[in-house]
Amino acid sequence: MKRISILGSTGSIGTQTLDVVAMHPDQFIVDGLAAGSNTDLLLEQVRRFNPRRVSVSSKQHAEEIRSSLPAGVELFYGNEGLVEIAAGGEAETVVTALVGSVGLQSTLAAIEAGRHIGLANKETLVTAGHLVTELADRKGVKILPVDSEHSAIFQCLNGENRADIASITVTASGGSFRDYTRDQLVNVTVEDALRHPNWSMGAKITIDSATMVNKGLEVIEAHWLFNLPYEKINVLLHPESIIHSYVEFCDSSIIAQLGSPDMRVPIQYALTYPNRWPSPASRLSLAAIGRLTFREMDYVRYPLLKLAIECGKAGGTATTAYNAANEVAVARFLRREIPFLRIEEIIEEVLLRHENAGNPNLQQIEQCDAVTREIAAKL
Amino acid sequence: MKRISILGSTGSIGTQTLDVVAMHPDQFIVDGLAAGSNTDLLLEQVRRFNPRRVSVSSKQHAEEIRSSLPAGVELFYGNEGLVEIAAGGEAETVVTALVGSVGLQSTLAAIEAGRHIGLANKETLVTAGHLVTELADRKGVKILPVDSEHSAIFQCLNGENRADIASITVTASGGSFRDYTRDQLVNVTVEDALRHPNWSMGAKITIDSATMVNKGLEVIEAHWLFNLPYEKINVLLHPESIIHSYVEFCDSSIIAQLGSPDMRVPIQYALTYPNRWPSPASRLSLAAIGRLTFREMDYVRYPLLKLAIECGKAGGTATTAYNAANEVAVARFLRREIPFLRIEEIIEEVLLRHENAGNPNLQQIEQCDAVTREIAAKL
Repeated sequence: MKRISILGSTGSIGTQTLDVVAMHPDQFIVDGLAAGSNTDLLLEQVRRFNPRRVSVSSKQHAEEIRSSLPAGVELFYGNEGLVEIAAGGEAETVVTALVGSVGLQSTLAAIEAGRHIGLANKETLVTAGHLVTELADRKGVKILPVDSEHSAIFQCLNGENRADIASITVTASGGSFRDYTRDQLVNVTVEDALRHPNWSMGAKITIDSATMVNKGLEVIEAHWLFNLPYEKINVLLHPESIIHSYVEFCDSSIIAQLGSPDMRVPIQYALTYPNRWPSPASRLSLAAIGRLTFREMDYVRYPLLKLAIECGKAGGTATTAYNAANEVAVARFLRREIPFLRIEEIIEEVLLRHENAGNPNLQQIEQCDAVTREIAAKL
Repeated sequence: MKRISILGSTGSIGTQTLDVVAMHPDQFIVDGLAAGSNTDLLLEQVRRFNPRRVSVSSKQHAEEIRSSLPAGVELFYGNEGLVEIAAGGEAETVVTALVGSVGLQSTLAAIEAGRHIGLANKETLVTAGHLVTELADRKGVKILPVDSEHSAIFQCLNGENRADIASITVTASGGSFRDYTRDQLVNVTVEDALRHPNWSMGAKITIDSATMVNKGLEVIEAHWLFNLPYEKINVLLHPESIIHSYVEFCDSSIIAQLGSPDMRVPIQYALTYPNRWPSPASRLSLAAIGRLTFREMDYVRYPLLKLAIECGKAGGTATTAYNAANEVAVARFLRREIPFLRIEEIIEEVLLRHENAGNPNLQQIEQCDAVTREIAAKL
């Protein structure tokens, strides 16, 4: 029996993590669940999975559900609540399925407490990759990727010597607007942007796919997860999202991981590694699909991907600023305050103003994050 | 330094094995070379790679080259010569690059002598898979696949638990006649058949690709190499030969190996496993290729594939008979004695007459092989 906690249990990754738990009820114990404001769903999850500890985003939400919780369930809220679920209790593995750099503090707390991390919250590594990976190394904690691309690369590296890696290639579907010219992007709506061609995901990551920011964040995440220089990380357009990513070795062999687009597979692998368990995900038939297509990434069409990689190479707080500006800009787009292409302009403007600080500590990162958000909110 | 011997050094796999050796001159010592009748090329190889022991197919060929050999090189010939190169000398690994079941005795001798096997001679496993794998297990000898498909599967299994395999899929280009109907096969010539669309290989295997016998032999080879029931071995048409083969695991994840069609890569991997060394093979660019296509295997279009799998499931001497009949029929086609489609008829006729013997010993296998060849030569 594996004891897990989930940060962000009511989101897309959180609910799919609980799907995996439900498929293997004899294998998992849910120790803690942290949600935001979707208290109805959280209560349903509590009744079904019997966690000992839960947390919600605010005191108000906590009061809303207190009387509905089964006896003995501990209730927390706010940032402290997140940290309680991450680092308190008895989970062996914490699935960090929060969206955005808000997940940083609780992820660090979980690592500090020696919990293995099922990492879906890529913004954590983008914002503070050097701190997170250094602490994980020091604590002997495994960071197991949940993103399908990083899970693919992680799987392709099974049994291989990391020194033999020639490069890794992260595939990109191209997102909702992959067949649009830049001129056609001027008037796209939130609804248009939320229609991802292959994957069913949360709103923020779906917008990030349309801007290709998501792939930029993934390149930075890959840099930290696999300890590779940016020169060895490629991005390839692959509209069908069937090859989830691949590794090329020094002998020119490529090992790739393929599958149907179903996040439950990489989630489960993060929880069962190094074992594999049966999954109800639909089996991939390449004959039924018939063909897979590939195109060079277009860095002119997707300037935010280029910018992400430049920030990654610059290091310091550049990726923190990039990420914070993006979070604010995407939230503003989703609130219909700004048009789609304004996301780009805001991030670019923020980075023009950004003064990079090398090897920042947590306080510097949090300050950069806060300052950037203020600027991005007003642009 | 790794000491190797090569059985079949002047053939396609043999010369490419020596290409690999030439690329890493500080890493390999060539201990022995066994060739057939191409004595000019053998002498060139001797001058370049300085083996201590060589063998040719007949006493006559031995006498031809005796005076041209450097002092100290031991010379052998015939079947005993093959066994001397396989089991004598000091090689750690013997690359079995002979074509046909003629390789069986020397392969068994190499295993008996405790040498690891770089197996290109698939007919050995097809003819006597149970004897070869049982002996290898007993002697603690590794059988490392050189065929690109089996090397692919072997690589995909790195670091994985074999119990987690749901199935393996061997890809097939379709061979020289993949775009022909069966009616169009009636009048095809030897020259037509030798034009393989993707791979540069020896004559016999190129004909076997056109009849799909090669894929049948590979399915049987995979059965023995990976200890899998036939129900877990699939064949998929993939005209581009870029995905060399793949493994599906119980969690629905597929791990695939991809690369340019260059036999030096799997040959080298068999020699360097578990390490990977740099290779001059051209790097694969999926963007440059643009697309990969897949189709269900057509067992009506390729009846010899279906028959091979049926023989594999029947076990006993059925695969020995299938293989011997094919070897004779292909040789007759290459000598222009019979038309292309007669290959099928000969194998089918031989198997109709075949009386299967379960769990045969070496003598029974050799007898079945000899009797089958006699019948097939006269049909």
